[in-house]
Amino acid sequence: QLEKLRNRFNYVASSCKDIRDRYDEQEDGLYYLTTANGMVYQTFCDMTTAGGGWTLVASIHESSISGRCTVGDRWSSQQGNDANRPDGDGNWSNRNTFGTAEGTTSDDYKNPGYYDISAKDMSVWHVPNNFPLEHWNLASILRYHTSNRFLSLYGGNLFELFQQYPVRYNIGSCSNRGPAIPIVYDFGDEESTRQFYGPKPRRESEPGFITFRPINYERAAMAICSGLKPTGCNSEHYCIGGGGYFHPEQCGDFPSFDWDTLGNEQDWSASKEMSEAAVLLFYRQKNKLHI
Amino acid sequence: QLEKLRNRFNYVASSCKDIRDRYDEQEDGLYYLTTANGMVYQTFCDMTTAGGGWTLVASIHESSISGRCTVGDRWSSQQGNDANRPDGDGNWSNRNTFGTAEGTTSDDYKNPGYYDISAKDMSVWHVPNNFPLEHWNLASILRYHTSNRFLSLYGGNLFELFQQYPVRYNIGSCSNRGPAIPIVYDFGDEESTRQFYGPKPRRESEPGFITFRPINYERAAMAICSGLKPTGCNSEHYCIGGGGYFHPEQCGDFPSFDWDTLGNEQDWSASKEMSEAAVLLFYRQKNKLHI
Amino acid sequence: QLEKLRNRFNYVASSCKDIRDRYDEQEDGLYYLTTANGMVYQTFCDMTTAGGGWTLVASIHESSISGRCTVGDRWSSQQGNDANRPDGDGNWSNRNTFGTAEGTTSDDYKNPGYYDISAKDMSVWHVPNNFPLEHWNLASILRYHTSNRFLSLYGGNLFELFQQYPVRYNIGSCSNRGPAIPIVYDFGDEESTRQFYGPKPRRESEPGFITFRPINYERAAMAICSGLKPTGCNSEHYCIGGGGYFHPEQCGDFPSFDWDTLGNEQDWSASKEMSEAAVLLFYRQKNKLHI
Repeated sequence: QLEKLRNRFNYVASSCKDIRDRYDEQEDGLYYLTTANGMVYQTFCDMTTAGGGWTLVASIHESSISGRCTVGDRWSSQQGNDANRPDGDGNWSNRNTFGTAEGTTSDDYKNPGYYDISAKDMSVWHVPNNFPLEHWNLASILRYHTSNRFLSLYGGNLFELFQQYPVRYNIGSCSNRGPAIPIVYDFGDEESTRQFYGPKPRRESEPGFITFRPINYERAAMAICSGLKPTGCNSEHYCIGGGGYFHPEQCGDFPSFDWDTLGNEQDWSASKEMSEAAVLLFYRQKNKLHI
Repeated sequence: QLEKLRNRFNYVASSCKDIRDRYDEQEDGLYYLTTANGMVYQTFCDMTTAGGGWTLVASIHESSISGRCTVGDRWSSQQGNDANRPDGDGNWSNRNTFGTAEGTTSDDYKNPGYYDISAKDMSVWHVPNNFPLEHWNLASILRYHTSNRFLSLYGGNLFELFQQYPVRYNIGSCSNRGPAIPIVYDFGDEESTRQFYGPKPRRESEPGFITFRPINYERAAMAICSGLKPTGCNSEHYCIGGGGYFHPEQCGDFPSFDWDTLGNEQDWSASKEMSEAAVLLFYRQKNKLHI
Repeated sequence: QLEKLRNRFNYVASSCKDIRDRYDEQEDGLYYLTTANGMVYQTFCDMTTAGGGWTLVASIHESSISGRCTVGDRWSSQQGNDANRPDGDGNWSNRNTFGTAEGTTSDDYKNPGYYDISAKDMSVWHVPNNFPLEHWNLASILRYHTSNRFLSLYGGNLFELFQQYPVRYNIGSCSNRGPAIPIVYDFGDEESTRQFYGPKPRRESEPGFITFRPINYERAAMAICSGLKPTGCNSEHYCIGGGGYFHPEQCGDFPSFDWDTLGNEQDWSASKEMSEAAVLLFYRQKNKLHI
């Protein structure tokens, strides 16, 4: 069995789609990929959802909801709330990488696929913290994907999309948010999505979308609203990632999910399930054969 | 020579014991291992001590004894002393990994073997900071192993053991400590063990053991007392790792080894040798043939 | 193309010089290298400059010029300005490694070659932050190399050189700086070097050199003055890296490049170009054939 897994090193592919198409692998698990420059890395492939071929490229893990842009807040800022660093750590739009596939529900993860793969669609899994790889799929509290090839319009991946829509403090106002893309549910539905967030976010958002680069009343930028399209401007309570400056007491990878008591699903607070699940991001590469 | 080392990539094994048994390798050094999910990593194998087959899975390195749960304190907390984060960084019981085998005496190290290998015994080396791999064995100030297969009773590794005995603030009182396992010395003895700690710890501990999850008077949890079994409740002066909250001025990977002057072996303070040596943790896998 | 890049895994070499000489590879890009202990890593080889064979071993990236020895300041201290930690994080003279070759302009980088390769000369590239690998060469604002084999006199690499000249607070005074080595320009010249720093540094330095371990008036130690030899003692404004203690408001990887307004090339401040470019360090190994 180990031998079979090690043999995957001999595959030469730039994404999981590539591996599925060229080597006919249909099993979820870890595979080796190679960037355009020849950098080799291992990551998880979802080979089953909606035709398979989804490459895990990143996860956003909140290691400390009470920490305000401290160590571990790689998707916002690890250096405190600072208007002089409007981009924060800048990881949404650079080539820095961190973490491992097996550790992706225990800490933040970003691999070279994030900037290297040219994709058309993405999928998202919300996996409870610390779950092992072999149970991610079944343990997920929410799973969905896009199907309209929207990434082709924004450069082929999130690295490019966030060049066009920088995750930066004071880049614009609430009306300048990025695209909201409709989603297809693989586990969960619009109603369960709503229940994972707080009662007040429910009143200013619409489920069934993934939204990029929302901006709140205080001109703080976030990266992703998972499962929702904001219809108001308090997105810090239900969108994740961010630039380097927020209203005090809101900075962080899950910025202000705990505003009214942690995990209480009360007023502006998200549910405990949502607050304690890592957000896994997958890409599906353009089909090389028929595009 | 390099070529011989590179050829080890062709080995398929889940632990150093596996490599020793299947490929008859008897040389200490770096080898490739594969987790059950197929993740490949390199680590150091001790192929000589007591029959060999010991896999290096982690090291606890104190980068700044004066830092109080700051950057680098991955085995307690990198976010300050905080009762609201009772688990601290949580690395004793998650799948996050960090560091490299060659850098293991210069910074913290944790590889996938920590949670992946199913072991029966463990060994510990105290290696002076910054020593190169080729001299670890001879440079160690203390080396020992267990021989009673205790890990089989606690799930096969420390990841599982610390699920049963969480390294968490306020999980219990001093009387709730985890197991104390007798050790066999490979270098050093009970007397030298005692001399590495301070005069006051000597009065409240017994050498010849490795002890897990001690708890002190203030209900702070630590992870390991290396070489000792506590008989009192001031374990922060001679046990390592920890949860996220301690008495102020005690939080850290080597919590309060410097209470009465750093490295002075005075009152509660540990010796300079002990304070400036990384603690390397090895597992030996169950023997696959005669279990 | 990917297949060709993956085939490079079969090379067995300790440096890029080795790969150039033994496998006749003349293309810039990523290659696999192996340390003396058998640790395998990928890094960038410059196969063209002045005969080629240059191995990228490290980069110093300033993630936040306003941060004063905070997270990301791995080449000085990530734990604040602290006279009790005179070595800071100690990465100039230990075996800790971090980052990846492709991410080297987005964050700090240090690979095992830094301490493993035995080199005679080094080269330096100043590459604007976030530039992708394929454009580093052309995007560089300054590129130069040494040609007098000085590293042979200092142990063969920076790890050894900085054992002899520790990057430590209060190790000596301004007159105790390390060697200043003449450089050969590959892009830029003495005049352009001067223009990248502020007007006041220009008056207390001489271009055309790389200088190691300068010490300033306040007895803070830095690691490298890139392109310059100090003739005065305010080196914190034009030299990089450092120990763990500086004058307050000066600690950091680019210690006080922003003293008089960031990136304004005014008084003591460096230019914006220099402040926002990563400093890439390369080694060229001794020629194994004719030494």
